[in-house]
Amino acid sequence: MATKKSIGIDLGGTNIACALVEDGKLLHKVSIPTRAKEGKEYVFNAIFEAIESILAQTNTSKEEVEGIGIGVPGLVDIDRGVVKLAPNLFWEHVPVKEIIEKKFKLPVAVDNDANAAALGEVLNGAGKGNNDVVCITIGTGIGSGLIINGKIHHGLNGGAGEFGHVTVKEDGPLCNCGNQGCLETLTSATAIANEGMKILKASKTSILAQFVTEGQPLGAKEVFLAAEKGDKECKEVIEQACKSLGMALANVVNLLNPQQIIVGGGVSHAGDALFRPLTKWINHYSLDILNKDLSVDPAQLGNDAGIVGAAGLIN
Amino acid sequence: MATKKSIGIDLGGTNIACALVEDGKLLHKVSIPTRAKEGKEYVFNAIFEAIESILAQTNTSKEEVEGIGIGVPGLVDIDRGVVKLAPNLFWEHVPVKEIIEKKFKLPVAVDNDANAAALGEVLNGAGKGNNDVVCITIGTGIGSGLIINGKIHHGLNGGAGEFGHVTVKEDGPLCNCGNQGCLETLTSATAIANEGMKILKASKTSILAQFVTEGQPLGAKEVFLAAEKGDKECKEVIEQACKSLGMALANVVNLLNPQQIIVGGGVSHAGDALFRPLTKWINHYSLDILNKDLSVDPAQLGNDAGIVGAAGLIN
Repeated sequence: MATKKSIGIDLGGTNIACALVEDGKLLHKVSIPTRAKEGKEYVFNAIFEAIESILAQTNTSKEEVEGIGIGVPGLVDIDRGVVKLAPNLFWEHVPVKEIIEKKFKLPVAVDNDANAAALGEVLNGAGKGNNDVVCITIGTGIGSGLIINGKIHHGLNGGAGEFGHVTVKEDGPLCNCGNQGCLETLTSATAIANEGMKILKASKTSILAQFVTEGQPLGAKEVFLAAEKGDKECKEVIEQACKSLGMALANVVNLLNPQQIIVGGGVSHAGDALFRPLTKWINHYSLDILNKDLSVDPAQLGNDAGIVGAAGLIN
Repeated sequence: MATKKSIGIDLGGTNIACALVEDGKLLHKVSIPTRAKEGKEYVFNAIFEAIESILAQTNTSKEEVEGIGIGVPGLVDIDRGVVKLAPNLFWEHVPVKEIIEKKFKLPVAVDNDANAAALGEVLNGAGKGNNDVVCITIGTGIGSGLIINGKIHHGLNGGAGEFGHVTVKEDGPLCNCGNQGCLETLTSATAIANEGMKILKASKTSILAQFVTEGQPLGAKEVFLAAEKGDKECKEVIEQACKSLGMALANVVNLLNPQQIIVGGGVSHAGDALFRPLTKWINHYSLDILNKDLSVDPAQLGNDAGIVGAAGLIN
């Protein structure tokens, strides 16, 4: 089978990353600022220019391209290719598929960015060839994309994968969504950094203080570093965060019995310091018969996962 | 399309229910004791006799039957039709598909009983025509079957749907599985009855005492009845049980964004006394955008769901 090329676009609140993709590999990529505040038309023109520049620079004709896939940070009506709501872009009911198809006369597919990233990891990343995968991203918040039977699972309203808002602690910290104890309030980079701030406030002589750069905000990274250097309080913060995430993921394991859990996003760069306790807690809280063949792995494609997956929406 | 008939079997620890099914409807049903303690051979002979009796009594020839589907209370290797483990039957690695196919020379499909019940409700019960359904059964324990994209979701080891063992309360009651705070320890009929026993012990003049029949064990039903008659402590037990279940189901809603949640099993007969608080807590703990079109409904097929679903495994 001759593989055909597709265009994959990861439309973020800050940047638009766009690439020509063949067989899950990026051939040529451009990245430009989104400038969503300039308005919808500005953003679409930027997308059009990015696509045209890629085609020109790779000497690719439109006929060689199978279609254009785009991942958007919001809720998407998959069948119609309409972005129902994307707060970071200030978009409501934007017919993305129609607008881009009209311009390029090529098939266009639109999906949520976390879903696209999950598909990317399954097409050519940490989950290559796997059919039942839970792909989570831990950054400022926590998102997820579910691959079930080899396909993105969307659910009734196209909103499946709101893993950051599963309740882990009935009376836990207040979440932006209005509920208490959402996973996001316990294990996101923000949550870990907040706990680090408390440690710093309580004692300026803690190991953590050594990792603070003057004028820089404290991040989850510094808490992980201090924990590795033996800071007991930071160790406890990491352990608790991994326990909460492990419990939430174990619940997913008990429910879906997936092959693999892929963890991406900033916090995943902590490596073993994250994956060792996380795997321990997943195994603790899930049934042995369901976790015995499970693998828990770091994402491989980084920021390119969304582009690879977006291009994969076309096949 | 001419619909063909299938045989559906619900193999339980106590009874074997077996019926000729056409278009999701039972044409003729027989129910016989399982007597699993007599051994595997005894059980299979009972199944063979039940099938032959149904064919004879309905004047149906084997050629008119498309196949035989069977739901088993255990872990099943779906592809090979082997029951890997069924504690209630004392079975380990039993090649059910092979044994029944050899006898009747008809296609045989085997699945877990909760999965078969979920499929039954979707084929001809409360979820008729729906594609994304979570079907839970609340009895002595809590089980579930997931219908995703119109099909039973099995997961890697065929063990998906262990909803009774999702952790709801980190330091909750000890569960048979070895963990603490599993949903099953908080909302099953057993859990509700246990709370009722505590109320009775503390006060013999409580309203609940009026519902106790001499020599009969206290059940969840009596706790629901006393709550309806105004027993404050029983009301609190029901409210807490619904809150735990609602939270666990809300987590599933946030993850999978299903169309429908179907609730069956003994506790579901409580009707509004269960469904009203349950729906309130599901909505409380899940995102509005994911619960706004969700329906939460009682199962319709009762004990026949497993037979209808088992027959449906063949299509």
